This record gives sequence, structure tokens and C-alpha cells, in this order.
Amino acid sequence: MPITSIKGNQMPPSPIRKLVPFAEKAKKEGKKIYHLNIGQPDIETPETMINAIHNFSQKVVEYSHSAGIESYRRKLTKYYSRYNIELDYTEIMITTGGSEAIEIAMMSCMDPGDEILIPEPFYANYNGFSTQANVKVVPIRSTIETGFALPPISEFEKLITPKTKAIMICNPSNPTGYLYTKDELEKLRDLVKKHDLWFFSDEVYREFCYDGNEYHSVMNLKGIENNVVMLDSISKRYSACGARIGALVSRNKDLMATALKFAQARLSPPTFGQVAAEAAIDTPDEYFVKVKSEYVKRRDFVVKSLNEMDGVFCPKPSGAFYCIARLPIDNADKFCQWLLEDFAYDKETVMLAPATGFYSRPDLGTDEVRIAYVLNLNDLAKAMKCLSEALKVYPWKNAKTCIDE
Amino acid sequence: MPITSIKGNQMPPSPIRKLVPFAEKAKKEGKKIYHLNIGQPDIETPETMINAIHNFSQKVVEYSHSAGIESYRRKLTKYYSRYNIELDYTEIMITTGGSEAIEIAMMSCMDPGDEILIPEPFYANYNGFSTQANVKVVPIRSTIETGFALPPISEFEKLITPKTKAIMICNPSNPTGYLYTKDELEKLRDLVKKHDLWFFSDEVYREFCYDGNEYHSVMNLKGIENNVVMLDSISKRYSACGARIGALVSRNKDLMATALKFAQARLSPPTFGQVAAEAAIDTPDEYFVKVKSEYVKRRDFVVKSLNEMDGVFCPKPSGAFYCIARLPIDNADKFCQWLLEDFAYDKETVMLAPATGFYSRPDLGTDEVRIAYVLNLNDLAKAMKCLSEALKVYPWKNAKTCIDE
Repeated sequence: MPITSIKGNQMPPSPIRKLVPFAEKAKKEGKKIYHLNIGQPDIETPETMINAIHNFSQKVVEYSHSAGIESYRRKLTKYYSRYNIELDYTEIMITTGGSEAIEIAMMSCMDPGDEILIPEPFYANYNGFSTQANVKVVPIRSTIETGFALPPISEFEKLITPKTKAIMICNPSNPTGYLYTKDELEKLRDLVKKHDLWFFSDEVYREFCYDGNEYHSVMNLKGIENNVVMLDSISKRYSACGARIGALVSRNKDLMATALKFAQARLSPPTFGQVAAEAAIDTPDEYFVKVKSEYVKRRDFVVKSLNEMDGVFCPKPSGAFYCIARLPIDNADKFCQWLLEDFAYDKETVMLAPATGFYSRPDLGTDEVRIAYVLNLNDLAKAMKCLSEALKVYPWKNAKTCIDE
Repeated sequence: MPITSIKGNQMPPSPIRKLVPFAEKAKKEGKKIYHLNIGQPDIETPETMINAIHNFSQKVVEYSHSAGIESYRRKLTKYYSRYNIELDYTEIMITTGGSEAIEIAMMSCMDPGDEILIPEPFYANYNGFSTQANVKVVPIRSTIETGFALPPISEFEKLITPKTKAIMICNPSNPTGYLYTKDELEKLRDLVKKHDLWFFSDEVYREFCYDGNEYHSVMNLKGIENNVVMLDSISKRYSACGARIGALVSRNKDLMATALKFAQARLSPPTFGQVAAEAAIDTPDEYFVKVKSEYVKRRDFVVKSLNEMDGVFCPKPSGAFYCIARLPIDNADKFCQWLLEDFAYDKETVMLAPATGFYSRPDLGTDEVRIAYVLNLNDLAKAMKCLSEALKVYPWKNAKTCIDE
């Protein structure tokens, strides 16, 4: 029997999805599960998108241009313009979800053995994409005590080697909900410029910034126009994760030409999704006003509930729809599996993502979980009740809780 | 300014798509172009699929399971059953087009530096996927004189090294239209078994076998059940290239578990496409009877027209909807570009794919083109007329024409 690749063995299972088999089993046993483990919102996809799909009028479902449908790319320039990001449509390449944008950006800019600096905790799948590309992630730790603010630039400087080719951030951040300030971005800009690095910025949560805090895009940082690559997706913006439509955006023409070769190999992004995404740009502002106010309520409720539980600490995030909470537990992976396998409160339980998968060192995040506040307030209340009851009876507490490591 | 990767520079531009800018320019100048360069059929997508899209009823366009929607995977087992391929649904993973199935299969089975044997000419993007995975393609030449039949197994044996991890075929073949016989497949089976290799088989054209010739799947080769990986796609089957739905199929459980980790990193295949693809399985048989008879007419017309042109040779293929023709020209890339830039007959021209991109040695296929007979008979007649007129006036003929190298 032939054996699978070393790369395949090194490939990390998704910390968000690896507990799915336990969840499936629990469901079959009649347990109701509140899914706070995955960024799959319950918010309805805008009607503009659904209508476009219902009115799909092509007789032949054809490949599109490898870089995406031109009319969609042109219309996207208007969308970005609302955030003062001025682009030519040739600076936008449509991808199959934000995932593919990251894959193509990594392969276009980095070779096996090259290093990428990423503040951790970071979106777990960055580990997967790096493994695919044989690229080494070099993490810089941000901490729950500072609400996961940018670590000092001196920490980045210490880790830069001749192999360092790129820096990556997610802003607002999945999994921490942290929103980078203009000052922090400018510090990163200086670093990127000094070492002539690629600067990847995953900005798929720009619609979700709270409390009057402003989103600043790397696309507007002066002096590093050729270094910057923005990774984007419509998944969260329009609650349309299944459409699998993203974008790779850069003013660097060499990069865009290189990226196009990878895009050509896979022929084209999905046509149905693109048609829906093009229509989505006309979604009325009220949709976002409503959605944002809903997320604020959810965040406020979840963060308050968490901090009221014994031994739990959760900083209040300014963006996205995630938070990271520290729990009085020995091991987040074990706890999250236990919630599915061995716990129920009124025949219900909650599914969380162990934070360990968002760090690259196995000893970090062991008492933290990521919570996606993507359910309605009623469900969130039940989910928080489950968690609170679970913590009371979970047999393996952590002696270290609330003591800084 | 940071520089793009070595991998990105090595990435081959698609031979099918690299001439697109010249085609776009020609169109802007008012020329009509017959696209025989790309496997984008003009056949209508079945109504069953379009209706499923028009009736899409989910309020939230959600991620699916990373391996695809379970009901779709279960229904696919019934589809494969019609070809006597008996599967459990867990042996099928849904991918974003056949392209992603190949990418994931390569990464799951092969590491950087590993070698894969592929009879050439082969589907050009295999070069791209190999470059992405840092895998080395080792070609074995099949020739136009034999209609691109399987080269002798002794030729494979000569090239096997400790680095050889896999063999790959496309059956029926893109770009040659060749359909492997049962005997040829059994010879490959023995070779695969002897060296315990992975056996990748791209079988996306199984619906298109002509003249009573029978399609045999690698899935039914006895004794190598754990070596075989079938790559599939609905793009050609239902003329739905833009849906971007494919599948990776294998009975090897380790492989499926490894492949799932790559699938989890990119979250899920497109939801709209999967909903349409699930409905497509109910497409009535008459659809295929009609489509197949249409392709036979097109093939017969194109092959006859080509062989009637001075100095042109085109073997008659038994499957898919491509043929490779040898033309009396100096350089296929130059000729195909010239057709777009400098030639017109009655304000029309034809776009072909230079065969050079389907070989891995740059000196092969220089007087061959791939023709996709994906247009209706009227358009094909005009396209053939263009080609015939073009060959009369093309200034750079090939002295070697019709003389074997």
C-alpha cells in the first residue's frame, strides 16, 4: 500500500472542524448543539444575492475569466472606494474564497523554506496554507492581557532572518476580534519598508468594527504600495460563506501577473457565486446597520456572560465576531471534546474551538477557547448557560487559572 | 520592491489561456473568433441543474461539510454505480472542480522532489499543479502516429526511480481524445502493483466515448484498490464548467483522511454548485444521447476537414471532445498568435491551443495544435474554413512536415 506524503501528515487538522465527528455523534444521540466553534453566521444572506441566483439567466454555466468576471471586478472597485481604497479593476483578482487568495498569495511570493511572521493567536488555517506551500510560520505572541494588541516591533525585528519574506495580519482579527490602530499599522509599514517584505493583510471583517473604532486598510499605507497584498472574501460581509468568493488585491503588477498563472491552472472561480457577489454590492446600507447592531448586542452579551463566570476572563473585542476567553480548565482540546461527548445541560451543549489550534506552539492557548458569536441572542443565552454549567462540573480544573504564566 | 517566488516564475502560463490577451485585442478590433482553444462546450447545461439554482431555498448560504454535502455524496454513489463503480459515500470527497481534486491528490501523496510519470501530451495544467506542489513530472512520449496509444510499459520501467511515487493518466484523454483499452489499463495495473505506486486517473470525460468503444475505470482494477485515486468533475459531463464542482475518489482510507485535512483548510466546496450538481444526477438519459450524437457529428466533421487540408494529419479520437492535429507550420505558438493578430478571413478567425503546452519538453508538439470541437457544426465549418485559408497564407511553413522526426 502506498503511503501518504510527509506534507499530508504534517498538515494540521482544522481546530475548528476536527471535533465535527464528536458533534455528529452527539447529534445522533439527540443532543442539541450550539455551534460557537465556527464563523458561520445565522444572519440571512441579502436578498439581492439570492435574487441574482434565482434569476440566473445563462443557458451554459461557463468558466469565467481566470481572474474573475470583468464586470464584477469593475464593480468591486466601487465597493472598495467606499472605504477610500482606490483601485483599478486589474488590481483585483477573484478567488475561490479568501482561502484561495491566501494560498495563491503565499505561492506567488514565497518558496519552500521561506519564513512568514504572524502575530499569534492567528486564524488556524494560516498553518494549513503554510504547510501546503512548505513555508515556515514564525509566530510573535500577543497576549490576552493586552486584548491581543500588536506586540512591540522589537519582537518582530528579533525574528527577521534572510529567509523572512512576509508579514501577515488579520484586521479586524479572527480569532481575537482585535482591530489594529492606525499607529500600529504605520509601525508595521516602517518595518515592511525597512526589510522590503511582503505585507499580507486579511481584511474580510472590515464591515464589523464597533464602538466607533475605525478600520484602516493596509492598502492606504503610503510608501509600500508594491509590498501590500490584501486578502478578502464576501463570506462574512454578506453571510455567504458557501458562495466561496474571495479576492486577492495588490498594486504590484509582477505579483498580479504571477498570481494569474496560479489562477489559470485552476481555470476560474465559481460562476454562480460571482454572479451573486456582483449583485451583493447593491445591498442597501440598512442591511449592514442592522447586522452590525445585532453583532454588538451579541458581543456585549457574550463578553459580559463570560466575565461573570467564575475564573473566566474575556477581553472585549472591537471587531469581527469572535472573542477569545480564558477558562479555568486544564486543556482546551479535552474540554471542548468533553462538552460534546460527556456533558449535557437540558439535553443541550455548546461547541467551541480550542484556542490551541490558533497558536503555533503546542503549549500556548491550552486554557483558552475561541467563541464565534454567530447565533441569535436566545441561542447565545442557552449556549452561555451550558458553558457556565459545564465549567461547574468539568472535572479537570486548571490550578494556574488567572495566574499569569 | 519585494520579488515574487521562484515557484511563481516557474509556474507555466496556461497554453489554453495565455493567448487570451491577443484574443481580447482581436475582438476589440471587431474580429469574430471561433474558440476551439478551450474545452468550454456550447451545449446547454441541463435544465435540472438550472432549475435547482432557480429554486435555491436556503436563507443563509452556508459552508458545507469540507468533504461536500452528504446527500450529494450519497447520490453520487448511485451515479457511479451506473458505470459499475461501487462506492461508499465516504470514498468520495467533493472538490472545487477537478482542478482542486488533482491539487489535493498530489499534495496528499507526494512531497517536494517526488516524481510522477505521465504519458505526454497531457492536460497542460498537470504541469501547473506539479509546479505548485514542487513535484517533478517525468513524461513518457506517446505519438500522433499511433493515435496517442499507451507507450510500451518498458518505457515506464526505464524511468522509475526511488523518487517515483505516482503514475497519472487521463481517460478518455484531454488533449488527445485517446481512450485506454482494458488491456492497457491492466498493464498499468501490473506496473503500479509491482512498484506500489499511486495511480491517479482523471476520468472527467467518461460520458464521451464513441463508436461503441467502452470506458474502463481504474476503480475497477483488481488488486490495487489502495493505490487508485480517481479525479472527477461535472464540468464536461453537464456542460457546467463554471459550477466548479469535482471529486476525489479513493478506497484508500489513509489518503481520504489526509485529503480531508487539505479540504478543511479551504473550508468547503461551493454550495450553489453542489446544489446544482446534486440535482444534475437526475438528468434524463436522453440528454446524454443527444449530446453524444452531437459530439460524434462534430468530431467526424472536424477530423475529416483537417485531414483534407494540405499537409495536415489528425488521428480520429475515440473519446472526449478534443483532437490533436499536426499542421505544416514552423511553430505552433507563433501560428496560434498569428491567427489572432495578423490573420482574418471574412473578418473571422479561429483560436487554437498550441500543443507545445501539453508536452513537457519544449521541442515537442511544435507543429501540433489541440482542437476542442465544442462549437456547433455551423461554427465549426466556419472555423475549419478559417484554418484552411490560414494555412494557405501562413508565411512560415515547416519543411519537416509529415516527415517523422
